[in-house]
Amino acid sequence: MTALRAVQYLRNRRFEVGGVEARPPGPDEVAIDIAYTGICGTDLHIFHGAMDQRVPDRLTPGHETSGVVAAIGDGVDHVAEGDHVVVRPLDWCGECRPCRTGSSHICYNLKFLGIDVTGSMQERWVAPARVVYRIPPDLPLDEAALVEPLAVAVHDVRRSEIEPGDKTVVIGGGPIGQLIALVARDAGGDVAVSEPDAFRRSFADESGFATIDPLSGDLPGFVDDWTGGDGADLAFEVSGSAPGALAMTEVLAGRGRAVVVGIYPQPVPVDLFKFFWRELTLVGSRVYADEDFREAIDLIASGRVEARRFLSATFPMERATEAYEHLDGGGGGLMKVLVESS
Amino acid sequence: MTALRAVQYLRNRRFEVGGVEARPPGPDEVAIDIAYTGICGTDLHIFHGAMDQRVPDRLTPGHETSGVVAAIGDGVDHVAEGDHVVVRPLDWCGECRPCRTGSSHICYNLKFLGIDVTGSMQERWVAPARVVYRIPPDLPLDEAALVEPLAVAVHDVRRSEIEPGDKTVVIGGGPIGQLIALVARDAGGDVAVSEPDAFRRSFADESGFATIDPLSGDLPGFVDDWTGGDGADLAFEVSGSAPGALAMTEVLAGRGRAVVVGIYPQPVPVDLFKFFWRELTLVGSRVYADEDFREAIDLIASGRVEARRFLSATFPMERATEAYEHLDGGGGGLMKVLVESS
Repeated sequence: MTALRAVQYLRNRRFEVGGVEARPPGPDEVAIDIAYTGICGTDLHIFHGAMDQRVPDRLTPGHETSGVVAAIGDGVDHVAEGDHVVVRPLDWCGECRPCRTGSSHICYNLKFLGIDVTGSMQERWVAPARVVYRIPPDLPLDEAALVEPLAVAVHDVRRSEIEPGDKTVVIGGGPIGQLIALVARDAGGDVAVSEPDAFRRSFADESGFATIDPLSGDLPGFVDDWTGGDGADLAFEVSGSAPGALAMTEVLAGRGRAVVVGIYPQPVPVDLFKFFWRELTLVGSRVYADEDFREAIDLIASGRVEARRFLSATFPMERATEAYEHLDGGGGGLMKVLVESS
Repeated sequence: MTALRAVQYLRNRRFEVGGVEARPPGPDEVAIDIAYTGICGTDLHIFHGAMDQRVPDRLTPGHETSGVVAAIGDGVDHVAEGDHVVVRPLDWCGECRPCRTGSSHICYNLKFLGIDVTGSMQERWVAPARVVYRIPPDLPLDEAALVEPLAVAVHDVRRSEIEPGDKTVVIGGGPIGQLIALVARDAGGDVAVSEPDAFRRSFADESGFATIDPLSGDLPGFVDDWTGGDGADLAFEVSGSAPGALAMTEVLAGRGRAVVVGIYPQPVPVDLFKFFWRELTLVGSRVYADEDFREAIDLIASGRVEARRFLSATFPMERATEAYEHLDGGGGGLMKVLVESS
């Protein structure tokens, strides 16, 4: 068999490119010549060693990806060799309660491709066909690597049950927060972004959103003014921070909805009295379903979300460690860093 | 004018019966000869002095009440002298956002009768006609005093969006928790009650519910067995306790719903990761809307909820302080204590 190059995680904040054996796609699988893989916050957690208990030895990471179909296995008929594709990086059991009730994306036995099993940061990746989506051939493949995080945002906004005109506060202006803001506006929301980092605030400003620094400014007072004393209809908690968990209840109107997107390793104080007093709703939102991926592709392909604005830097696979270090050290100065497989 | 007797709050855990001037009902008001008033947890908070900042001097407390219409003011046509009635003890502004959007029960300027303004623990009470509800004349008036707390439970269960067959965990088996369990079962739910107090557990046992002591037992393990590993569809957090706030996320299935009924004076740790991971929903639930009161009356009048089981003791107005002390010291040995106005 041919040897192919693949990024491999060595732990201790290091990656190397090793050789792996090429294998043809099995039944219901697709082999993809990978173009680009984005690095996200979860990838940085892996880089930091925080997920060493979960990830296998010499994991090939990567789950925000784009590429070209190299070969298809038996039974695959929705994509063909040469198609440009993206991948919804989930593998579900099909038998647990969420799988039985139409929510396989929160399968109790979910395997996340690129975390629990091998991911896309390699020359050629064999993925389950059911999560491979064709994209328009004229959609640049680097922009297409943004479909996965955009699908997260689409799912979050779907969970919010947004309605046109809803006053919407996004708490946290990293890539996911910025994408949520764009998707919420596309759905008719009137959006403000709360973010302490100046670069991220300027990014949101350039998108045309109202912005506020919650550290130097008065977020509840800002929202009170902005909504004429009503309070906001929606809050997206994307910061994963303890202050963000308290802020979400401070900004909401009676019967307002908070969507928890940020990841909290530990329980944090939440103002349950405010949930009672104003009959607020909180919904958790995780990854994406089939329809979210389809909508994310359409949002980028149609130009309704300008993916290119999010692309900050690109590194070849051989410099994967440097790519992670760049994003990790870049703080607020970067949005999306890509690793190129070719 | 005639002097009428009224219980008055003297602060420092004391009440006395004083004389108040009788007044005829004004336009859109109803004068009610009060029969019974129940004492609830909020009344105990007043008794303890915890709400001294909020309640006016010499407050006449009481909001769980029943009585007979003595007179009606101009413009009142839905009740008549001699009708047996109960009162939904809310006074809303009609102008704020919740009032404008059909949720006047969470009015930003809500006055709660018996807390913010004078309540029912007196001989004759003049109440706003729009919150006076006629009840069947053969419904015993002591049982009718339970309509108000039952309406809380009806509202909570409505907020849960329960569906027949839903596995439902009620965390906290005080009067409201017990009523929620009964209403949830009436709506088709399969209900278990988690409660550390033995008397309250036995009360739930006698209602036919599965019960567990969360202190000596393993609540998540119990729910796991009870649901075949699926997790519960619904959790009602009625304990207002920090352990309850963590337990609600431990028992829920993917896409499960928690309803926060308990009152938390301070923010408490909540497992937001679990909300994310299982895409849980949390909804706050406060008091009741018009339809909840109507349903609560029907539940008691039809016998679907046996109100009499909840009536633990009755005291005359002159012994109001003793009634509060009895409930306060009675711990788990009591459900509902009434004060009789006649």
